Amino acid sequence: MTTPRISHDVAVIGGGQLARMMQPPAIALGIRLALLAEDDDVSAAQVIRDYEVGDHTVAADLRRAVGDAPVVTFDHEHVPTDLLRGLDADGHACRPGPDALIHAQDKLVMRRRLSELGVPCPRWAQVKTPAEVAEFGFPAIVKTARGGYDGKGVWKVDSLTDLTEPFEADADLLVEELVDFSRELSAQVARSPSGEIVEYPVVESRQKDGVCAEVVAPAPNLDPTLGEKAQAIARTIAAELGVVGMLAVELFETKDGRVLVNELAMRPHNTGHWSIDGAITSQFENHLRAVCDLPLGSTEPRQEWSVMVNILGGQVTDLEAARALALAAEPDVKIHLYGKAVKPGRKVGHVTAVGSELEEVQRRARRSAALLTNGEPA
Amino acid sequence: MTTPRISHDVAVIGGGQLARMMQPPAIALGIRLALLAEDDDVSAAQVIRDYEVGDHTVAADLRRAVGDAPVVTFDHEHVPTDLLRGLDADGHACRPGPDALIHAQDKLVMRRRLSELGVPCPRWAQVKTPAEVAEFGFPAIVKTARGGYDGKGVWKVDSLTDLTEPFEADADLLVEELVDFSRELSAQVARSPSGEIVEYPVVESRQKDGVCAEVVAPAPNLDPTLGEKAQAIARTIAAELGVVGMLAVELFETKDGRVLVNELAMRPHNTGHWSIDGAITSQFENHLRAVCDLPLGSTEPRQEWSVMVNILGGQVTDLEAARALALAAEPDVKIHLYGKAVKPGRKVGHVTAVGSELEEVQRRARRSAALLTNGEPA
Repeated sequence: MTTPRISHDVAVIGGGQLARMMQPPAIALGIRLALLAEDDDVSAAQVIRDYEVGDHTVAADLRRAVGDAPVVTFDHEHVPTDLLRGLDADGHACRPGPDALIHAQDKLVMRRRLSELGVPCPRWAQVKTPAEVAEFGFPAIVKTARGGYDGKGVWKVDSLTDLTEPFEADADLLVEELVDFSRELSAQVARSPSGEIVEYPVVESRQKDGVCAEVVAPAPNLDPTLGEKAQAIARTIAAELGVVGMLAVELFETKDGRVLVNELAMRPHNTGHWSIDGAITSQFENHLRAVCDLPLGSTEPRQEWSVMVNILGGQVTDLEAARALALAAEPDVKIHLYGKAVKPGRKVGHVTAVGSELEEVQRRARRSAALLTNGEPA
Repeated sequence: MTTPRISHDVAVIGGGQLARMMQPPAIALGIRLALLAEDDDVSAAQVIRDYEVGDHTVAADLRRAVGDAPVVTFDHEHVPTDLLRGLDADGHACRPGPDALIHAQDKLVMRRRLSELGVPCPRWAQVKTPAEVAEFGFPAIVKTARGGYDGKGVWKVDSLTDLTEPFEADADLLVEELVDFSRELSAQVARSPSGEIVEYPVVESRQKDGVCAEVVAPAPNLDPTLGEKAQAIARTIAAELGVVGMLAVELFETKDGRVLVNELAMRPHNTGHWSIDGAITSQFENHLRAVCDLPLGSTEPRQEWSVMVNILGGQVTDLEAARALALAAEPDVKIHLYGKAVKPGRKVGHVTAVGSELEEVQRRARRSAALLTNGEPA
C-alpha cells in the first residue's frame, strides 16, 4: 500500500466484522485506526483506509500493520502469545494483553483459572484418552482447548464411539458436564487500563446449530439476584484477569437457578451487537474508549427492549435486493451488513429493533432478518 | 493510489466532515463509498479507503474519483454545473442533479424559483449598483449570489458607505429585506428518485457570528401550524426542484408569526447533525438511502429532546486531552470529532445530548462542548 501513512491511535489485528464495526465510533471520536487484514477485500479492509494485508501469525506482518500505533487490539483471539509479547516489548500496548488474552485462547487455561477464582463453571477435566472421558461420565461435552468457535471444536458425546472424531486431531482436549440449562445468557463489561469497569445489562442469547441466532436485551424475566451474580462474575473475571477492552462472559442459566460460565471473549461479541442501536454507548465505542484509556460511556439502554437477529446466509443471494425489501418492510429496524459474500450459514450481517413492547420489537427484528435471509417475511 | 479498486456504490465529491459522517451509515448498510478529496488527510479521506486526491472543478479528477460508481453525491455544492452534466452524460446519476443543485449554488436562481412557486421569502431584488440597493431601502442584507457560507459573502448594510465591500468583488449580488425574526428554524426532508419524501421535525438553529452554534430538536414552543407550514415548504421545494437526497431549508420565524426561506442546502446539513444520535434514522443514513434509491428510514426522534452544540476552535489546542475531560464529565453525551486541526472559530466537531428534560439536555450538551472548546465546563 503506497497510500501515505498517517499516525494511528489504534491498530486492529484481523479484518472481520468486529473490526469493521469499530470504525463508526472511531470516526466519531477521532480515533485513527490501522488494520492488519487477511486480504484486500475482507469486511474491515473495505472501510478502514490504512490497512496492510498480512498474516497475524507472522511478526513482520504484525509490525508492518501496527506501525507507530501506541495501542494494539483485536478482531479475534488468534494472535500467538509470543508475538503479542514482542509487540509489548516494542512499546505497543496490546489490549487486552497476552496474559489476559490467553484465557480467551485456551479453554484449559481458562477453566483452571476460573476454578481457582471460585467462579462457577460446569464440572470439567482435562482428558488425554477416551477412557478418561468415560471415567468422567456420559453424556458430556468434549472441546478442543484452542481454536473452536461457533460450534466447531465442540462435540456432544454419549458413548465411546462418539470420541473417535475429537481424538483424531492432535489437540488438547477437555471434557465438561452436559449442563441442564434453561437458556444462555451473556454478561458484558468494558474495563479500562486504569481499572474503570462498566457493565451492560445481562442479555439472553438464543443459539441455532451452535451459532448465536438472536439476542434479547435485557434477558426477559431474569431473576435480579441471578442477573447481579452474572454481572459480578464478569466484573471479577475482568479485574482478576486484567482484561482491557470488552469482555463477554457467556453463561448457562441452569434449571435449578444457577449461572455457570461457558465461554469468554475479550473483544466486542455477537451478544453485544444490540448495543450499537440499543444502548447509549455501543460495545464497539466502549471497547475503543477502554483500549485508548478514555473514560467509559454509559451502558444504559435507549429503550426498554432491543432484539438483535443475525443474518445467516440462506436463500437470499442478492443481499442488495433483499436490503431494499427489508428497509421498506421495517423502516425502524437498523440493518448492519458486513460486506461479505453470502454462503450457507455464514454470518453476513445482523439487524436490531428497539422499542417498548418485547413481542412487537421481536416481530419487527425477525421479519427484517427473514427478508434478508430468505427473501420472505418469516 | 495503488490500493486495488473495488466497485463502488456511491462516489462522494468533497472530503469534509459531511462526507466523513456518511461513512458510518454506509458501513452499516454495506454501501461502498469512493471519495474525491482535496488532500490526503482531509476529514473524510482519513476514514474512506478508496479516495482520490483531486480538484472538484477538474473533469478528469472527478472522473478518476467516480470510477465505476453509478451514483455521485456531494459534501458541498461547489461542483460546476457543466461538469455535473458531463458525469450524468457518462451514465453516473448525480444526486442531487445539476438542475436541482443550481438552486443551492446560486441565490438569485433560488429566489427567482421560490418566488415563482409562491414559497414565502424575504423581499428581495437583484442589484447591479449601490443606487439600486439604496432604492430597495436601508437597512438591508446584501449577498453574493454564489460562494457565500457561514456568514461569508453576506453583509448587513445601513447606508451607501457599507456597500463598498460588497461591490468591490466582481460578483452577482442580491439585496434582501432585513427580516425582523424571533429565531431561525430548519426544516429537513429526504427525497428519493422515486419521489418518496420523509420529513424530520423542524428544529431551532441558534447562530453566533453567522455560524450555527446550537440546534434544538424539535424547535421548542413551535406553533404546530407554523411547523407544518415549514415542513410543507420543504416538501414543496424538494418535489418541485427535483431534489434527491437531503434538503435543508433554513427559515426565519418572524415576530409576526410567519416563516420565510433564508437558505437552501441539498446535502446533510449542520442543523441535522442531532439526528445521528437523536433520531431513528440519521440525516446521513437517509441521504445515502435516498441517493441509492432505497426506501427511506423513520425520522422519529429517539427521545423528546436533542441538543447539538458545535465545537468551534477556541482555547483548546489539544483536542485529545479535552476529549478525555468531556467524556469523563458527561458519559451520556455523544462526541463527534472531524479529524481537523484546531483553528480559531473552525468547526472541528459537535456534541449531541438527548433526553426528556430540555434544560438538563441542554446543560449537558453545553458543558461537554465547552470542555472541548475552552477546556472548561460552561
